[in-house]
Amino acid sequence: MNPTPVLSEFDRIAIVGLGLIGGSVARGLRAAGYAGHLVGAVTSDADAARAVALELVDTCHADIAAAVGPADLVVVATPPAELDEVLSEVAGVCPAHAVITDTGSSKTSVVEAAARAFDAAAMARFVPGHPIAGTENSGLEAGFATLFTARRVILTPDETTDPAALAAVEAMWSALGAQVSHMTAAHHDEVLAATSHLPHVLAYTLVDTLAAMAERTEIFAYAAGGFADFTRIASSDPALWRDIVKANRGPVLHTLDAYMAQLQDVRSAIASGDDHHLHDIFERAKTARDGFVLQREQNER
Amino acid sequence: MNPTPVLSEFDRIAIVGLGLIGGSVARGLRAAGYAGHLVGAVTSDADAARAVALELVDTCHADIAAAVGPADLVVVATPPAELDEVLSEVAGVCPAHAVITDTGSSKTSVVEAAARAFDAAAMARFVPGHPIAGTENSGLEAGFATLFTARRVILTPDETTDPAALAAVEAMWSALGAQVSHMTAAHHDEVLAATSHLPHVLAYTLVDTLAAMAERTEIFAYAAGGFADFTRIASSDPALWRDIVKANRGPVLHTLDAYMAQLQDVRSAIASGDDHHLHDIFERAKTARDGFVLQREQNER
Repeated sequence: MNPTPVLSEFDRIAIVGLGLIGGSVARGLRAAGYAGHLVGAVTSDADAARAVALELVDTCHADIAAAVGPADLVVVATPPAELDEVLSEVAGVCPAHAVITDTGSSKTSVVEAAARAFDAAAMARFVPGHPIAGTENSGLEAGFATLFTARRVILTPDETTDPAALAAVEAMWSALGAQVSHMTAAHHDEVLAATSHLPHVLAYTLVDTLAAMAERTEIFAYAAGGFADFTRIASSDPALWRDIVKANRGPVLHTLDAYMAQLQDVRSAIASGDDHHLHDIFERAKTARDGFVLQREQNER
Repeated sequence: MNPTPVLSEFDRIAIVGLGLIGGSVARGLRAAGYAGHLVGAVTSDADAARAVALELVDTCHADIAAAVGPADLVVVATPPAELDEVLSEVAGVCPAHAVITDTGSSKTSVVEAAARAFDAAAMARFVPGHPIAGTENSGLEAGFATLFTARRVILTPDETTDPAALAAVEAMWSALGAQVSHMTAAHHDEVLAATSHLPHVLAYTLVDTLAAMAERTEIFAYAAGGFADFTRIASSDPALWRDIVKANRGPVLHTLDAYMAQLQDVRSAIASGDDHHLHDIFERAKTARDGFVLQREQNER
């Protein structure tokens, strides 16, 4: 526990959605020493009771208005499919001074949804955000306080964003131990398609391909640690990832097409026995991946 | 340390190649209480000296004849590109009573190489084997005693294999803590193409695709744990994996083609907004992957 009061300018922080991300924001804020009131919004009374029993939040409602109505900071951490509806509800009840942010994995679609839901004043206080952190788990019990420690958070403000709102959201992520960066929503979506959305598509596709094979029982019985790591993300929530891919369709197709073209090239090299070309590709990949690991380790120090 | 003498019927075990696999066999045998002489064969005098200094083996040579000449059990753990030459050298110097095994990742190509190198008597004492274990590391310092603990080893004997030789190789892997299974070489190659060789091809191809993109610096800067896991195998030795893919070309192309067809189907579902189909694929994959994890956890208990 950190004895310094954090985010003391906010008497009440509302978190809409208490899955892996929302739950980790809640637990992280408490662990960081946030002393105000944490209120959650979930989809059922049963989940609301469980969220309080799990001590994720102080109070919890199956009603966005009840949670968001008196809030100073609203963190929308719902699945992408619910975003349009949730932002509309938030718009209807959110106090005029409240800062609003989200945690969605694609940002252009979120900005579009916010523009439909909010007037210009609320839009200025809306700071689109995306914490680059996660596990393959989901649900009320998936969150943990250190999920964002030393992880990156990308915010995608534009020229209409209120600097005070941006500073408040930055302060929240800093309190959670994250490193905050800014970029445009469009750029974010290209980068995330490449490093997150495409890998999920590839992992799901591989496991489904193998599961359809006659030898599937033995295939999985003899798979080792490399396979377990490679396919970990295929244990992620299918509905969530279908919706993330859908929300970021353009950039996902763009990177998928680049990948499929390169895979066709690799296939030709294997089929024709072009060892030199195959080695070049594998070696370039190893060099790039080793560089990524080194950079990651340096960031975490 | 296990005080019970293991493999005491072998006074001298020769390990040809002391990389990740050979080095782990050496360290594992010692940790299991093997009390006989461990001799290594490597490619240079400098490596031979280092292998002894690292206490991988008791003695080590840059000369296969010197290592294998007096051995009772010969474990060939060299990269696939060297296999033809190594087996020929082993055939020329191996004592008539010695049992011979290997650790290669593809088995049909190994059996073909062995058939070129060995006469019928030596072939009967040759037990093709493949431990399903590894890390992305390689070299003399990569091995560790527990690499094979609770891991599977596939042996691919045929009707000409001497049952006593088979039992000896089984005993060695059991001493290393592994679970031994048998199947045909052809079946092994299909299963391993699916769970190991194809994933390596896909991971290398992904990283190389991203490394060629204009945003590559940011792509890697904002990649998270899921990406690190998904691409871990792309840090494996490029020359080794080029040669493994080459040695198992038919099965690799077979599973790669199945994968590419499924990926084309997934691409169509994303492009056309067929949410239902995309969800089905992702959900089937999650179910299969969760089942794999459960089975793996049960095996390790």
